[in-house]
Amino acid sequence: MNDDSKRGTPKDTHYARLRRTHRDAKAGGPPAGRARPGVPASEGPADGLVRLYGLHTVRAALDNPRRRIRRMMATRNALERLEIADAATLPFAFQLVEPRDIDRLTGSDAVHQGVVIEAEPLRPKALSALGDTPLVVVLDQVTDPHNVGAVLRSAVAFGAGALITTSRHSPTEGGVLAKSASGALEHIDLIEVRNLADALATLHKAGFRTIGLDSEGPADLERSFAGGRIALVLGAEGKGLRQKTRESVSALARLDMPGAIRSLNVSNAAAIALYAAHRHLAAPEAAARGA
Amino acid sequence: MNDDSKRGTPKDTHYARLRRTHRDAKAGGPPAGRARPGVPASEGPADGLVRLYGLHTVRAALDNPRRRIRRMMATRNALERLEIADAATLPFAFQLVEPRDIDRLTGSDAVHQGVVIEAEPLRPKALSALGDTPLVVVLDQVTDPHNVGAVLRSAVAFGAGALITTSRHSPTEGGVLAKSASGALEHIDLIEVRNLADALATLHKAGFRTIGLDSEGPADLERSFAGGRIALVLGAEGKGLRQKTRESVSALARLDMPGAIRSLNVSNAAAIALYAAHRHLAAPEAAARGA
Repeated sequence: MNDDSKRGTPKDTHYARLRRTHRDAKAGGPPAGRARPGVPASEGPADGLVRLYGLHTVRAALDNPRRRIRRMMATRNALERLEIADAATLPFAFQLVEPRDIDRLTGSDAVHQGVVIEAEPLRPKALSALGDTPLVVVLDQVTDPHNVGAVLRSAVAFGAGALITTSRHSPTEGGVLAKSASGALEHIDLIEVRNLADALATLHKAGFRTIGLDSEGPADLERSFAGGRIALVLGAEGKGLRQKTRESVSALARLDMPGAIRSLNVSNAAAIALYAAHRHLAAPEAAARGA
Repeated sequence: MNDDSKRGTPKDTHYARLRRTHRDAKAGGPPAGRARPGVPASEGPADGLVRLYGLHTVRAALDNPRRRIRRMMATRNALERLEIADAATLPFAFQLVEPRDIDRLTGSDAVHQGVVIEAEPLRPKALSALGDTPLVVVLDQVTDPHNVGAVLRSAVAFGAGALITTSRHSPTEGGVLAKSASGALEHIDLIEVRNLADALATLHKAGFRTIGLDSEGPADLERSFAGGRIALVLGAEGKGLRQKTRESVSALARLDMPGAIRSLNVSNAAAIALYAAHRHLAAPEAAARGA
């Protein structure tokens, strides 16, 4: 979106933009308004811990009784924004630091906002632990941490009770995923199953209608909803749902897209499906049918 | 989503996951199944050109008569997948290369799929060039290239005719944005305006209802739609819409989110709003009202 109308006499700002683009391309993201020198991330945390950063993400972790935090590093400013009056009262190790100290752990490209914690990863649950939620998301080998994080965020926003993945080819809890989830990781059950087709069969027995999203699906998404429990099943970008998964769902449904592009980023497809499923479930006739 | 149920005896795969997380955190994205050694991106292209990579993105650029390509580098495999039988007939410089040659340009973290082009950036249009499209997206200082790329992709999928941004604080066309857009950049008009409030006034005169997305908005999104032309206005994550923008739109609308998280990633919010607006515009009563 550069202004190239003066191609013979490119402006300084034009070159500044190109340099910024180049830097963003390397960083895989925006510069996030920092003026500190770029540093790469250090080695990960020890002892099987995960590193979580960013104000929303850390606030949600602090508020989650299931999250076991081992250590926090924060700037004075971040402490204030987290409304922690006295860091000495925190039930884990705390260190007051400068932003560049956190850069050295997370890399300066991570938008850590002055706070990082090291915590135990959340223990994934078994499918038998699924409660009475009317809405779940099932991921068929989607592993990109940005996408999975964004899916988690939308899932929590629209009231989904669980994210179900396979044990193999599942996303990995970590800083990028947690930051993209913006705290959602602490508000939803993560369920891992060995075999997705078996899990779908279990969901059917529990009254779920399982809807696989497929750009070539025969049904319109909204028309594929029925009953009081919905499981939305999404595959990885490019690959889509595996054949066995396609054969196991109650219905394959597509989003009606009139444009020149007929597939969406997986987290965007998930957001729309969650929005539509939530509307279906919230409608009085769905409530009358019962879960 | 690690299995930490055997915390005393962590498995090798557990450490492998942590290492992968760490690498992904540094890369800002998934590893994309490559086994080549990691290299950083080189300096950007000269002469105010942009570098575009990935099969979808390059295919769409090749098919766009408005896109002026100066140079292509591709692997034999990518040429085949692009269905280019004879590279000698291409109307620009071509070089047959190995994947690692492209890594050196884009950085090995870029999912270039064996092809990169250098091209002139697309010339943004003025608002006066807006055609008779019933649907546009307006971005109020959203600059993250991943998000803007994903918004472009959803905008094209749901038939939006233009993406309107301000000249200042606008996203920059580049590899990350183009890759996230997955070819959408070539299918939509990019319009730059100096003053967003003035642009909204112009849209109102042209019969658009402008809907600002705001998590605290008084109206439910679907109830805020009316008439035959809709402009969806979105602000940057965290900051939201600027005060002047909030005062200038026809309506401020929220998405109904029942969960513990009440804001979405901006590209997910855009996808849902585009989906809902498309449904409104495609409904017979909207067609009857006329554009």
